[in-house]
Amino acid sequence: MNFCTHCGARVELRTPTGDHLPRHVCAACGTVHYQNPRLVVGCVPEHAGRILLCRRAIEPRRGFWTVPAGFMENGETLQQAAARESYEEALARVEIGSLLSIVHVLHAHQVHVFFRALLPVAEFAPGPESLEVELFDAHDIPWGDIAFPSTDFTLRRYLEDRAAGREPHHFTAVSRRVTGPAADEAQA
Amino acid sequence: MNFCTHCGARVELRTPTGDHLPRHVCAACGTVHYQNPRLVVGCVPEHAGRILLCRRAIEPRRGFWTVPAGFMENGETLQQAAARESYEEALARVEIGSLLSIVHVLHAHQVHVFFRALLPVAEFAPGPESLEVELFDAHDIPWGDIAFPSTDFTLRRYLEDRAAGREPHHFTAVSRRVTGPAADEAQA
Repeated sequence: MNFCTHCGARVELRTPTGDHLPRHVCAACGTVHYQNPRLVVGCVPEHAGRILLCRRAIEPRRGFWTVPAGFMENGETLQQAAARESYEEALARVEIGSLLSIVHVLHAHQVHVFFRALLPVAEFAPGPESLEVELFDAHDIPWGDIAFPSTDFTLRRYLEDRAAGREPHHFTAVSRRVTGPAADEAQA
Repeated sequence: MNFCTHCGARVELRTPTGDHLPRHVCAACGTVHYQNPRLVVGCVPEHAGRILLCRRAIEPRRGFWTVPAGFMENGETLQQAAARESYEEALARVEIGSLLSIVHVLHAHQVHVFFRALLPVAEFAPGPESLEVELFDAHDIPWGDIAFPSTDFTLRRYLEDRAAGREPHHFTAVSRRVTGPAADEAQA
């Protein structure tokens, strides 16, 4: 961040009075610009026992597989965001179920939230950000080609829970970078 | 938002190609500035059956009671944020427990996340953002003077669950504004 969104003057990095962290502060108008983690929301859609995955058409991690997920928008709930992303990325109309996982992606300043979901009708197709969309049996999931650690964690917990007949939620934190260009920058 | 954080030129509100919502786009360098919901994280600290509440020293809702909560910072987990806020607002060292509630505060573009928490030792005092900090028996909670709908929802679910001996999590959405100056703007 170089310039103030309010007045356009240069910002400087300093700790405001009474604060405990350095912030971008406008040298002209004094506005403090906070930067906070962003929410990425998705789901694991299931149809007749199989899981819907999308192969990414965009960076980061183009060509790798993931569940439908993306940045939450203002004015929607987490569940609405998860359903919207499923439609945008896979043209899939899902019913959002229970909370599945919350992954703190520390280095990317993101919190990823995933839900279980039902795909009642097997209708889907690649949206503009997907190369392919496909239903996978559990033993066919391409584990070596999963796009993000948060997706890998979430899919594994999903399958374990399903096998055990339960629906808890899981927390984890990841701080490692995955291979590939700018893989931690976004998951839009 | 008036100016680009990257180059300082004026931004305009338009829907980028391939997008579905209007964004602030820089007329000079083309940077798209996304605005996403921010996470506010807190907890309900309990000591010997009583609940720790803080009376706010700052706007919005100065003088009203709330549980310790505030904006999540980059690089921390939700649980770390909840513990940090308890220390900042109440000088209370808490142990964060299970997920209690997720409240979509739609009009404020915020998602509030609350945890159950244990205050092992009854040591606390007002931090710079609190006028008073006090332990309340359930029947003494000042329901008429609770700062935010998300706090009210969270405290009620906490007490119901405790009475029933269970620890589920709860979702809700609020879109109403509460009385008082700019009550929906922030909860830092």
